Amino acid sequence: MDETTRKLLNKVSTATLTTVLFKRGFRNVFLQGLSALNPDAVRVVGPAYTLRYIPAREDLDPLDAFENPEHQQRKAIEECPAGSVMVIDSRGDASAASAGNLLVTRLLTRGCAGIVTDGGFRDSPEIARLPIAAYHLRPSAPTNLIRHHAVDRQLPIACGGVSVYPGDIIVADGEGVVCIPQHLAEDVAREAMIQTMYEDWVDIKVRAGTPLPGLYPLLDEDLRNEYRAWALEASPRYA
Amino acid sequence: MDETTRKLLNKVSTATLTTVLFKRGFRNVFLQGLSALNPDAVRVVGPAYTLRYIPAREDLDPLDAFENPEHQQRKAIEECPAGSVMVIDSRGDASAASAGNLLVTRLLTRGCAGIVTDGGFRDSPEIARLPIAAYHLRPSAPTNLIRHHAVDRQLPIACGGVSVYPGDIIVADGEGVVCIPQHLAEDVAREAMIQTMYEDWVDIKVRAGTPLPGLYPLLDEDLRNEYRAWALEASPRYA
Amino acid sequence: MDETTRKLLNKVSTATLTTVLFKRGFRNVFLQGLSALNPDAVRVVGPAYTLRYIPAREDLDPLDAFENPEHQQRKAIEECPAGSVMVIDSRGDASAASAGNLLVTRLLTRGCAGIVTDGGFRDSPEIARLPIAAYHLRPSAPTNLIRHHAVDRQLPIACGGVSVYPGDIIVADGEGVVCIPQHLAEDVAREAMIQTMYEDWVDIKVRAGTPLPGLYPLLDEDLRNEYRAWALEASPRYA
Amino acid sequence: MDETTRKLLNKVSTATLTTVLFKRGFRNVFLQGLSALNPDAVRVVGPAYTLRYIPAREDLDPLDAFENPEHQQRKAIEECPAGSVMVIDSRGDASAASAGNLLVTRLLTRGCAGIVTDGGFRDSPEIARLPIAAYHLRPSAPTNLIRHHAVDRQLPIACGGVSVYPGDIIVADGEGVVCIPQHLAEDVAREAMIQTMYEDWVDIKVRAGTPLPGLYPLLDEDLRNEYRAWALEASPRYA
Amino acid sequence: MDETTRKLLNKVSTATLTTVLFKRGFRNVFLQGLSALNPDAVRVVGPAYTLRYIPAREDLDPLDAFENPEHQQRKAIEECPAGSVMVIDSRGDASAASAGNLLVTRLLTRGCAGIVTDGGFRDSPEIARLPIAAYHLRPSAPTNLIRHHAVDRQLPIACGGVSVYPGDIIVADGEGVVCIPQHLAEDVAREAMIQTMYEDWVDIKVRAGTPLPGLYPLLDEDLRNEYRAWALEASPRYA
Amino acid sequence: MDETTRKLLNKVSTATLTTVLFKRGFRNVFLQGLSALNPDAVRVVGPAYTLRYIPAREDLDPLDAFENPEHQQRKAIEECPAGSVMVIDSRGDASAASAGNLLVTRLLTRGCAGIVTDGGFRDSPEIARLPIAAYHLRPSAPTNLIRHHAVDRQLPIACGGVSVYPGDIIVADGEGVVCIPQHLAEDVAREAMIQTMYEDWVDIKVRAGTPLPGLYPLLDEDLRNEYRAWALEASPRYA
Repeated sequence: MDETTRKLLNKVSTATLTTVLFKRGFRNVFLQGLSALNPDAVRVVGPAYTLRYIPAREDLDPLDAFENPEHQQRKAIEECPAGSVMVIDSRGDASAASAGNLLVTRLLTRGCAGIVTDGGFRDSPEIARLPIAAYHLRPSAPTNLIRHHAVDRQLPIACGGVSVYPGDIIVADGEGVVCIPQHLAEDVAREAMIQTMYEDWVDIKVRAGTPLPGLYPLLDEDLRNEYRAWALEASPRYA
Repeated sequence: MDETTRKLLNKVSTATLTTVLFKRGFRNVFLQGLSALNPDAVRVVGPAYTLRYIPAREDLDPLDAFENPEHQQRKAIEECPAGSVMVIDSRGDASAASAGNLLVTRLLTRGCAGIVTDGGFRDSPEIARLPIAAYHLRPSAPTNLIRHHAVDRQLPIACGGVSVYPGDIIVADGEGVVCIPQHLAEDVAREAMIQTMYEDWVDIKVRAGTPLPGLYPLLDEDLRNEYRAWALEASPRYA
Repeated sequence: MDETTRKLLNKVSTATLTTVLFKRGFRNVFLQGLSALNPDAVRVVGPAYTLRYIPAREDLDPLDAFENPEHQQRKAIEECPAGSVMVIDSRGDASAASAGNLLVTRLLTRGCAGIVTDGGFRDSPEIARLPIAAYHLRPSAPTNLIRHHAVDRQLPIACGGVSVYPGDIIVADGEGVVCIPQHLAEDVAREAMIQTMYEDWVDIKVRAGTPLPGLYPLLDEDLRNEYRAWALEASPRYA
Repeated sequence: MDETTRKLLNKVSTATLTTVLFKRGFRNVFLQGLSALNPDAVRVVGPAYTLRYIPAREDLDPLDAFENPEHQQRKAIEECPAGSVMVIDSRGDASAASAGNLLVTRLLTRGCAGIVTDGGFRDSPEIARLPIAAYHLRPSAPTNLIRHHAVDRQLPIACGGVSVYPGDIIVADGEGVVCIPQHLAEDVAREAMIQTMYEDWVDIKVRAGTPLPGLYPLLDEDLRNEYRAWALEASPRYA
Repeated sequence: MDETTRKLLNKVSTATLTTVLFKRGFRNVFLQGLSALNPDAVRVVGPAYTLRYIPAREDLDPLDAFENPEHQQRKAIEECPAGSVMVIDSRGDASAASAGNLLVTRLLTRGCAGIVTDGGFRDSPEIARLPIAAYHLRPSAPTNLIRHHAVDRQLPIACGGVSVYPGDIIVADGEGVVCIPQHLAEDVAREAMIQTMYEDWVDIKVRAGTPLPGLYPLLDEDLRNEYRAWALEASPRYA
Repeated sequence: MDETTRKLLNKVSTATLTTVLFKRGFRNVFLQGLSALNPDAVRVVGPAYTLRYIPAREDLDPLDAFENPEHQQRKAIEECPAGSVMVIDSRGDASAASAGNLLVTRLLTRGCAGIVTDGGFRDSPEIARLPIAAYHLRPSAPTNLIRHHAVDRQLPIACGGVSVYPGDIIVADGEGVVCIPQHLAEDVAREAMIQTMYEDWVDIKVRAGTPLPGLYPLLDEDLRNEYRAWALEASPRYA
């Protein structure tokens, strides 16, 4: 992902992105049911680094499993590249934690951009105070090993009902998390920004009392001219 | 609904309303599982204007469906009367949006009182900043047409497991949304206000240390006299 | 529970407690899916006082059932000892309320420490302003009798998928609610505090950039010495 | 329950019983989601003997717990009276078994009439060959103690979302299980038999081509006379 | 639907139909979670006649509601055309019945082809003996009015998560129920029959030991010739 | 797995296996919610061959995806060794098929022992007639690609809430499916057979009227002697 694409994606909403992706035939790109822990740190754009959990097994997942530096979860925390978003396949199971405060803090200090799970975080009040985008299903105090076994990294996974391939572009905002197939990121970013500019103007018009027919999603001739004039002046702000 | 009824309903809680309706035999009037997007705009009283969704079908719901001014969702947004509450039957499915910011803003500028769905809104962070009561299940970025087809307006619907007939009175507060059968609104409003006055006094007494037996829900003779005196003085404030 | 144990438990997180209990073989001690109404009143430590609901039956649960001072819910509210936490088995059913504002206020004035249900509270906006730890599944306006029948007090119950025996120690924080078997409370409290002290130091190190391997959960020799020095100085604050 | 009532209840369907109970104001008497293991042994009428489970706890529920003859489940199996139906509150959790083949066989040899759980049975293929009405949610091999702790007997419980009081009359057929409040059994049985006679006749007429209006649920004058004649002759078979 | 189309659809499976519809872009045509009551009467092809339920309301749905000959459910039973399949939108709620034996028998004597609900039937053991395709979620004894209010007929509905428009072609077999948009029925039937002929031959080959690559879904040159010869001979049987 | 172990496992029930595994600390070995398609082909013992699905993506999963001989699902069907049981991780999603009749028939002709998914099979009526143990959640006609993308083979997976490692021993019977960690198979098989012999005798005694206390799970001295004599004679049949 080049810097221009990142900047564009940083300014568009997950809602707009799902529309642009739907135009390209993608119906299932929004990770269902997740919300941000820290309402002041919801914005993130970055490539996905994936981690996969399967159900724990008593002989393989005793409490001292984490003492093994080769443990997949711990390796993931140390290896996830700066700027990336760790995405964890927790099978939608929040009955034990996907990760906790110390690991998320370590991710943050290593420069990672965010962390997403379709399970739950423990130490969620502490994570909610960290300046990092962290999304989950709901808080979950029980330690990871009670239910989860970190089995591999950087394979394609499911998260929130959506497929996430390593390198796909994760974009999150106050609404939730979208996963953009990597090869579409640049194209989608550009179109989403154009759509955003148009919807910002529509928002101004609607607040001023203009009815939607003829304004959105199709413009009447008159309004089209008005928009063109506005857009000409506004477009530098949307670069 | 006359103005007196509206004023009374504006001062009573959804909890009290469910009790008053239960006394009349109504057990299922609270729309289950919904919450407000804007915690500072939760209060609403108004007649229901209904919109019904069924599952989308690929040939009937392409992205340009919204370009048709006869689209039921768009007609609903332009026709929902000022003062009314739009209630959408989304079949409890929040995997795609019931509506988004531009439509809710348009509703607001048209003077509508609120919007309720048992699905989810997109652009939920923007909607959460609008001064309008908006209730849903959870945020949902994907565009409406991925899962929903607006099929008709102003028919009786299901929402949150409750039947909503056009013209029924919707009352919402910080707890959630209640639907009052239209013909009962005046009667229920009056009784709910009496109950509210009584419970406000009980709250004062409980905070002062009075035990509940003899105080609530039945009054001992002594407390009854004390309450009568208080109520005589207080009742103008509850008109 | 002695005062020392209470003070220790007041300073440790539910996450840490689940880990300490897992070391003793307990995998199911976190009440699943519950959250606090008042984010400024989440901390509570106290013995469980239990109340059990079964489904309501129309002949046994008319609206005037609450007029009976022998009603189990009302007796519970008057009998729950100061310092205790009332825990209600609502079968995970939040379609009608487990309790409302007046009852919770009465509990508060009686000196009770908190109230927990795996159903929902009504008058939830009012309860959210009370200085008492109250946990539930979600708000629920409908009056208790529509769905619940309070059947007995102080028997072992299920709540949030966890068994709660009267006298078990309930600890809650911003993450949720843990139930500690009574006979383990003192031992668990002590170990949890030691773990907390260690994790606080790990947090300092991680924020300063130390990688997790060699730091957590096992210490390298060097770091162990550093920790010992820190702990010697810090331990009085963790007594 | 006298013998006449038992005989009548043995001939009416659970569907008819729910209608008769609805006429008396009871809306929630059908245990939801349960089915019979042995399709040739679905009919049962008998008073409920209740057993309650809460979640297991590792220190209280080791595998040798069943060696204790005072274990509540084992006492229940030996004490449930001949002719009674054991009803188990398993909290709708079928992830571990409520009981298995040996226990159900023992119940059968002791003369018990049936067994019902809102969890699952293990050894379900064997139970499905026993001549006893056994109802559950779905098969479940894992041993009881993994998830359940038998805590008490003969208290009011919840099963399949319905309250079951000891002594309530359980009636099951190929459709499922109904719980009749004890004091209503005789009255309900009589009315259900009258309704059954009427519906049997309606069935004959419908099969012969008579339209429903004027036939069911209200009879036209002509058909009423025809029915009276039929009923006069048929009624001895419905005694 | 012409007779040829009906005959073709009678010979193809719901699985094949979903594939043919997927080729035309339709992903959501299989009614989820439904099964047939009578395993010997699962085959049905016919146009949909729709009936819609919303939640019952105590004042509108007393037990004598069915005495009204204008009741929507009763009118539907008398009006559903011979050869049609009644499809009921029960909102996926099987806690009370969608219909019972007398109504289904009446439908059968009137020549209707089948009945489908995403709720449950009562008198399910009796219905399971009728020679009519009847599909539901699970048995449900409680009378319809406890939870459902029949509100209108012949409008587009949702059933099993799929949109069903009046006149759409319903096809069911031992696997479940598919809804084919009306305008596609002829075209889909023809292609499904061609696909069925091919898969029948593939089945013969697979049973004889031929590996799938080169056989299915794409044919190698050799196998293509073999298939052509077989198809030439077989095609009359697939007309 | 040696032949002796296979023979033993073929004679013991999944219920007994869960007990034996629980004694070794394993609580989660029964795949939840699955049932057999062919009631006459439920018995299977064999090593697991795993296949993993993630959600489909429109650009990667067009209908011609199956034309690629490298498609993971097709390769799995051709590579799964004779005697093995294919286990598919379908994320518990039965809204589209995990596999259909042609693939299962091919598995059968290749000598595979069974197929298990926590999704659903299409062509389920045909599969139900094949002499192969096939387990799923429920029938599902829609073609695989609508919801699933076969991503890899022979990695550890989740199925029915249980972890399944390639080579783990799958045992299924009329109750469902158990997964035995590979290294325990021999040991577990032996103990399960001993337990089976004991329970067979207990079953004889219970049918003859012996109460459970003193018989099961612990034997009184007298009964122990009786059992020893019986077991001496019976044990060859349990080799």
